[in-house]
Amino acid sequence: MESFSHGYMSDKSKYLARLRRVEGQARGIHRMVEEDTYCIDILTQISAMTSALENVALALLNDHLKHCVVDAAASGGGDAEEKLQEASAAIQRLVKS
Amino acid sequence: MESFSHGYMSDKSKYLARLRRVEGQARGIHRMVEEDTYCIDILTQISAMTSALENVALALLNDHLKHCVVDAAASGGGDAEEKLQEASAAIQRLVKS
Amino acid sequence: MESFSHGYMSDKSKYLARLRRVEGQARGIHRMVEEDTYCIDILTQISAMTSALENVALALLNDHLKHCVVDAAASGGGDAEEKLQEASAAIQRLVKS
Amino acid sequence: MESFSHGYMSDKSKYLARLRRVEGQARGIHRMVEEDTYCIDILTQISAMTSALENVALALLNDHLKHCVVDAAASGGGDAEEKLQEASAAIQRLVKS
Repeated sequence: MESFSHGYMSDKSKYLARLRRVEGQARGIHRMVEEDTYCIDILTQISAMTSALENVALALLNDHLKHCVVDAAASGGGDAEEKLQEASAAIQRLVKS
Repeated sequence: MESFSHGYMSDKSKYLARLRRVEGQARGIHRMVEEDTYCIDILTQISAMTSALENVALALLNDHLKHCVVDAAASGGGDAEEKLQEASAAIQRLVKS
Repeated sequence: MESFSHGYMSDKSKYLARLRRVEGQARGIHRMVEEDTYCIDILTQISAMTSALENVALALLNDHLKHCVVDAAASGGGDAEEKLQEASAAIQRLVKS
Repeated sequence: MESFSHGYMSDKSKYLARLRRVEGQARGIHRMVEEDTYCIDILTQISAMTSALENVALALLNDHLKHCVVDAAASGGGDAEEKLQEASAAIQRLVKS
């Protein structure tokens, strides 16, 4: 089934719950600016939200390496190399962002 | 007027627009997971969203230093010291998150 | 031969050259403080050095995934899982540091 | 005296000691690659070194804000604005690196 083709699917509901919390944080920060909350308190919330987002990304990446990359390697062929280049580029964007 | 007490107020509508875009990005990432988008593409969006959030934080921090901290320093007294400790702690959270 | 067991070996002389440059940057920053160089210029050098170090780490990680992890996956067995947990923990430390 | 013109001077010997440790870490990482140490262990050392460098940068930045920026603000004139722009750019490089 198509929807089971990606590694993160097993935890899909957990990811959706975490991302809903991130959306809530985004709305909260928007409201804080609207209500003229003290700047430092807004920065604290932004750091918390950035950290939550990074954790989602790290979990997705781990699932991706575990499923897509390892599967490609196990089945041989040149696919693993390509998957790995993709993953390395994604890791670089995460580290540099 | 109370609502003009914080430095970022001058650009309030600009901040609100940027944060609305961040909310849109959060909803977009949620939808991507829901629709089983390829993992690497989700990671790219998360990096873009993290970067956008950091830019909002850096702009807020700059406004805060320019207004609150410099004003406190200009008016003398111990207030500047306290404001600076707060700002330094916020910078540390940003760098470390 | 033992010393060829790790993936990064192929580029060993390149890594050594990059790390020698990083050592030079560290000595340079030490000297800047000693000579009372303007603070902002020291910070610029520290950012450059941090970035150079991250690039070395990303290259090492890429080599590690390409060799150790993919090899473990291709040869089957539980080893790949363990290698992957290690790599994920290393990625997390890089993203969070 | 010229050498007392920068804010970080009060802690100069402490900064020099920290930077000497960073140099030691750089040499240690170089040696690890030379001796074919396991890749993940090298990455752990690189993360520790990156973190140590960031802490030096945050301490320097805090001293800089406390001395140069606040002094410029207290003495009035356009100097504070310029100092602040510089500091904000340095913060951005730290957050983005």
